[in-house]
Amino acid sequence: MHFQIPFHLYRSKYPTKLLALYHSLRDSILDGVLTYETRLPSSRELAALYGLSRGTVNVVYDMLNAEGYVRSEIGRGTFVSIHYEPKSTPERQSQVYVLSDWGKRLMSQPTGDVSYDLPGVVKQIDFHWFAPDIGLFPQEEWNRHLHAAAKELTGQGVIPRAELQGDYELRNSIAQYLRRARGIDSHPSQIVIFNGSMQAIALTVQLLVNPGDPVIVENPGYLGIRRAVHTAGGITKTISMDGQGIIPDDWEAKLLFVTPSRQFPTGVVLSMERRQQLLKWAYEQDAIIIEDDYDSEFRHRGKSLEPLKVLDREDRVIYIGSFSKTLLSGIRIGYAVMPASLVEPIRKAKALFEPRPTGLLEQRTLAAFMGSGSYERHLRRMKRAYSRKFECLQKWLYMLLSGQFAWVEGDAGLHIFGWWRGNEPTYIEFRDQCAQAGIRWSEVSVPVQLTETEAEAEKVSYGAYFNFPHLSEADIEYAIKRMEEVWKSIQTE
Amino acid sequence: MHFQIPFHLYRSKYPTKLLALYHSLRDSILDGVLTYETRLPSSRELAALYGLSRGTVNVVYDMLNAEGYVRSEIGRGTFVSIHYEPKSTPERQSQVYVLSDWGKRLMSQPTGDVSYDLPGVVKQIDFHWFAPDIGLFPQEEWNRHLHAAAKELTGQGVIPRAELQGDYELRNSIAQYLRRARGIDSHPSQIVIFNGSMQAIALTVQLLVNPGDPVIVENPGYLGIRRAVHTAGGITKTISMDGQGIIPDDWEAKLLFVTPSRQFPTGVVLSMERRQQLLKWAYEQDAIIIEDDYDSEFRHRGKSLEPLKVLDREDRVIYIGSFSKTLLSGIRIGYAVMPASLVEPIRKAKALFEPRPTGLLEQRTLAAFMGSGSYERHLRRMKRAYSRKFECLQKWLYMLLSGQFAWVEGDAGLHIFGWWRGNEPTYIEFRDQCAQAGIRWSEVSVPVQLTETEAEAEKVSYGAYFNFPHLSEADIEYAIKRMEEVWKSIQTE
Repeated sequence: MHFQIPFHLYRSKYPTKLLALYHSLRDSILDGVLTYETRLPSSRELAALYGLSRGTVNVVYDMLNAEGYVRSEIGRGTFVSIHYEPKSTPERQSQVYVLSDWGKRLMSQPTGDVSYDLPGVVKQIDFHWFAPDIGLFPQEEWNRHLHAAAKELTGQGVIPRAELQGDYELRNSIAQYLRRARGIDSHPSQIVIFNGSMQAIALTVQLLVNPGDPVIVENPGYLGIRRAVHTAGGITKTISMDGQGIIPDDWEAKLLFVTPSRQFPTGVVLSMERRQQLLKWAYEQDAIIIEDDYDSEFRHRGKSLEPLKVLDREDRVIYIGSFSKTLLSGIRIGYAVMPASLVEPIRKAKALFEPRPTGLLEQRTLAAFMGSGSYERHLRRMKRAYSRKFECLQKWLYMLLSGQFAWVEGDAGLHIFGWWRGNEPTYIEFRDQCAQAGIRWSEVSVPVQLTETEAEAEKVSYGAYFNFPHLSEADIEYAIKRMEEVWKSIQTE
Repeated sequence: MHFQIPFHLYRSKYPTKLLALYHSLRDSILDGVLTYETRLPSSRELAALYGLSRGTVNVVYDMLNAEGYVRSEIGRGTFVSIHYEPKSTPERQSQVYVLSDWGKRLMSQPTGDVSYDLPGVVKQIDFHWFAPDIGLFPQEEWNRHLHAAAKELTGQGVIPRAELQGDYELRNSIAQYLRRARGIDSHPSQIVIFNGSMQAIALTVQLLVNPGDPVIVENPGYLGIRRAVHTAGGITKTISMDGQGIIPDDWEAKLLFVTPSRQFPTGVVLSMERRQQLLKWAYEQDAIIIEDDYDSEFRHRGKSLEPLKVLDREDRVIYIGSFSKTLLSGIRIGYAVMPASLVEPIRKAKALFEPRPTGLLEQRTLAAFMGSGSYERHLRRMKRAYSRKFECLQKWLYMLLSGQFAWVEGDAGLHIFGWWRGNEPTYIEFRDQCAQAGIRWSEVSVPVQLTETEAEAEKVSYGAYFNFPHLSEADIEYAIKRMEEVWKSIQTE
């Protein structure tokens, strides 16, 4: 268990263990180290961890409960119940400094976190969080490769500069994987490894977008790209969508961000015709397309269309992929297949912040994991498990909540999306009542009119999506049935 | 041995092993995977690695030698002999894209690498490279902590958002270390962990500097800060120096970058009076000071002055430290103690590129390594070994090359700095002849007049510094004696 409070440090400052525990827990909560909704260890676990009596821990938990820092729930445990608010250090008065324009734009970006309160007591099912199913991760196999990589790396003096672009074996494995799985013919020299795909996206945007420049993005769409564009000073122009995906237009812009395999978050697949139109637009405008292929590994049925990158004859597409959905939350490795002329600029952009290679240990572990065939075995196992969860979630959503949501048909990915059929107040009531019942999901709201294809729906402006990898089929079934009950109770009020 | 060529991939493309080996080696050289001066494995090693006969490997090495890709040196091995030039992919013609102003400024920055040719045959001693002495690293102890951290981390589902700022135990250990070793009273909530100290510097600059803003930097000084300021569009104003360090002035600026403990690269220690003047300036100008304490762990004699951060009563100093000098080249962990009001902006800046925590595995390993006392034991061992190397290098430099260089007196750090006493042509001849003899170092050139303190020297504009951690005392002695011989041979020409 990785539970972090400065108990030993505080033990030297306070006369009793009880006070040391109380203050170290309280300060950890106030400092945001223990965040809202974190489950604290049981009194037995915590007592064992620091050589305390259970009685002491219980008294401390009671004190914190009484003061509102934590909330104890019978049979479930003790949870942090306040939100973190940064405080200045007591002794010194901190100045407020004027940020750069970049900094000001950065600070005005929303964090993108939906956070409303989930009350305790009830069983909680969270479709909002995304995390891979940890039970599927081949921990021992991964760690075996990790140990070998660590032994090698810690026995090396100087790391070659070429690794700035990422471990070569890994780039080579990715090139082979992309050829086999996505039909993309790329060379390791075009592939750049990042600490997660967002690093690739944000650095690319900073490299290409000036303040005032328009960038075409999807609506609804990925918040990360908006944050990156707005922080660079660019202006996002949103694209409308229909059943074939986003609708091409003759935008005046030099950069477009798109998720053709499965539009995020709606899941609409961009038709082949539209793909060709987008590429044609890029050729005519001398523009660059960022193609984010964020979860194409998970196709439950049928065959996927070719990525834009395969159709790209003029080296205009930056193809972005990631291992964050297929490995673990704690392992952040993303990559980009770059146009040849942008390899050196993006290397240099990365090197401004990280002049020597970072993350090499996990990169080499992943390279060995891929090279040994373990990655594809792991993918196959995950696909089977996630396909079952997908079918389960789809079945219950279609069966019980099709009157409330217009589900977007799909056969791939790690979440299911639906447009709310009713009006805004009903949606908000339903959402809040479900939260009361312990169930939450991710939402988007789009203030635009939809096109003919969705004409049968009422004025739809809310969309909801349900991440499922971390949940069991039993929990999925329970949650959707519970949502139906909530709906019925609203109707009969 | 981590030797990376795509032999197995090429084996499926070429009819013979010989051709597969030839093309995989050649392409790796052309792609810059095997960089200039990389030593290739011996024919025996390479044969064993891929199940080839030594004869095959020798034929391939001869082919590559004949074509100029590699250079074989009797008794020393085979070395890559061409420089990497990025090429565009053969099938597709790549476009040249217009970069943002930020991207253009980035591309116009020098990389900061001195790279002149070192011919083979002779013994090579490289004072230019910096790398910790790998022989001192407690590989097994580190890897034991790494394995435990990996087991824990790969058993976790969701990583708490608080970790964005860095692993809490690590921040706590750093706070304790800073209190004990540097007298800095900081709280873990003010400490932010980065993938190396340059990430902290570059993000801070981007957060605070607008195009056109002046930033005060040292001259000579760290290239990284200049690159960061210039890429942000800021203008660097350089400060003159004397024997007490940089000379305070009433600059109009909001940001100053300084290395008070040991000015980089000259090694001059900033006097206490000057430190107070700098802080006073910051208070009056409402400015921020970035204090880079890049190698203060290594004090060979005497006691150090207090860091600026300790004297800072108004929370105006950003204190930056790093583990890159004390661990290994492949482990990049840096940190900053931030003013309270800048914690949230810097967290958000980091999260723009890395919205979920990265590098947690190595952070947790380091936290355990520090928590168990291993880090301080490792530091003590390194200090002893580096102090011996320092005394050795200082002795030989002072004894044999004091006529050529005015050495800056010092008793700390991992390099020794001297100003060239002679004129420019002599320096260049000496440097180039030493390179011919297999010895190189890092250099700076300062086109400004020096102050009275250095008045006895001639028109001094070149400085040289000598990194020593990776070298043995025998090599250090050999190199400096060899330099003296080179000098004598120039004099008698």
